[in-house]
Amino acid sequence: MIVLKLGGSVITEKDERETVDLDSLARLAGVLGQADVDDLVIVHGAGSFGHYYADEHGVSTTDGTRDARAVREIHDSMTRLNKAVLDYLDDAGVPGVPVRPFSAARRDDGLEFYANQVETMLAEGFTPVLHGDVVADAGAGATILSGDEVVTALAAQLDADRVGLCSTVPGVLDDDGDVIPAVDAYDDVAAVLGGSEDTDVTGGMAGKVRELLALDAPASVFGPDDLADFLRGEDAGTTVRG
Amino acid sequence: MIVLKLGGSVITEKDERETVDLDSLARLAGVLGQADVDDLVIVHGAGSFGHYYADEHGVSTTDGTRDARAVREIHDSMTRLNKAVLDYLDDAGVPGVPVRPFSAARRDDGLEFYANQVETMLAEGFTPVLHGDVVADAGAGATILSGDEVVTALAAQLDADRVGLCSTVPGVLDDDGDVIPAVDAYDDVAAVLGGSEDTDVTGGMAGKVRELLALDAPASVFGPDDLADFLRGEDAGTTVRG
Repeated sequence: MIVLKLGGSVITEKDERETVDLDSLARLAGVLGQADVDDLVIVHGAGSFGHYYADEHGVSTTDGTRDARAVREIHDSMTRLNKAVLDYLDDAGVPGVPVRPFSAARRDDGLEFYANQVETMLAEGFTPVLHGDVVADAGAGATILSGDEVVTALAAQLDADRVGLCSTVPGVLDDDGDVIPAVDAYDDVAAVLGGSEDTDVTGGMAGKVRELLALDAPASVFGPDDLADFLRGEDAGTTVRG
Repeated sequence: MIVLKLGGSVITEKDERETVDLDSLARLAGVLGQADVDDLVIVHGAGSFGHYYADEHGVSTTDGTRDARAVREIHDSMTRLNKAVLDYLDDAGVPGVPVRPFSAARRDDGLEFYANQVETMLAEGFTPVLHGDVVADAGAGATILSGDEVVTALAAQLDADRVGLCSTVPGVLDDDGDVIPAVDAYDDVAAVLGGSEDTDVTGGMAGKVRELLALDAPASVFGPDDLADFLRGEDAGTTVRG
């Protein structure tokens, strides 16, 4: 079973509010439609959808809101992006169905994520498509649940064989801009990882690598050009193995 | 804590596809906005939204589909109705947030419903608004999960104090069309309960009464005129106590 994250910056125009990158999404959906993967779970990021509203309302993974209208603005924005992703997957022959993390999780001394429905969807031949979202947070109202958190929760609970993060960059880069083929410990890359430059309430590559190192499954960080390789089980981008 | 069902026939024009009964919904939302209830969970039915698509694709609570497009058509239709309900609640000052059962449940030798997120939403001051939906069903693809099933699952798992079913009829009626004030066993009403006359894949009053009798919490079946009384804790329509 593979958990694949499609980064928000890959499927949206990050600088234009609520704008899908149609060419990129169509291309990725086409690759997914051609792939021969039995059990695939897709998680997509927020890009220019959820982030804008999260910023507007001052909501992050730690700063919450008790304003139901703010919660709905962020969540509904992600519902619109999710629908676009599902429509393109449908065009490409992928039997995607939506799973909304706000309906399936809460934070209360850590993240609690209900994943049994995803397991049954996979067994019945569907491709569950999740996303970064808001989440009810005990003591804080509702906070942001990043797509990366959803990926790690699903990978751990569903005992994923492999995890893929398809981002705009071709992998974890060294100081010369070359892809580092493998990362086995955070110290390997601490010197080269900075923060994300775009608006991103959920952290950049440093956080991603830390979370991937904590997984049992090997994870690959790669760019859109390497998605087909990844789905075939070949090396793609940087392989992170904790 | 109260679990309140707003019947699909109360909030939609049941004979006109995807048509909200705006007057009725606005009126119910207004009553909810004026009510003094600490912890309220709302579940709404499908009416002229989900049912049409369920019928079109031959999907019921027992007959499933493995067609992702059919699943999405039914689910997306309910998402549109849910948005209308939330918008009207918002206008009335009720802090509603959406919870989609398809994301929170599965059938596998019975219904498994994740309700902890609802508990945290309530504790944080939100009013979770759920609905009848599709649900991943082991061995059957996806089947229909009725709003009534969602009500009984939530009432049992969240240990509800009271359950209310607001329907188009003022209660369970006897042969003269008068409201039966109390039902303590199915035999009390077996002679007078027939099937629902409208398109309804999820059963009529007979099924509702059977499910309510199985609950620990007392349940009231009443019409829109009695919603305010019910919310104040007064007798409303028929009280079902198993």
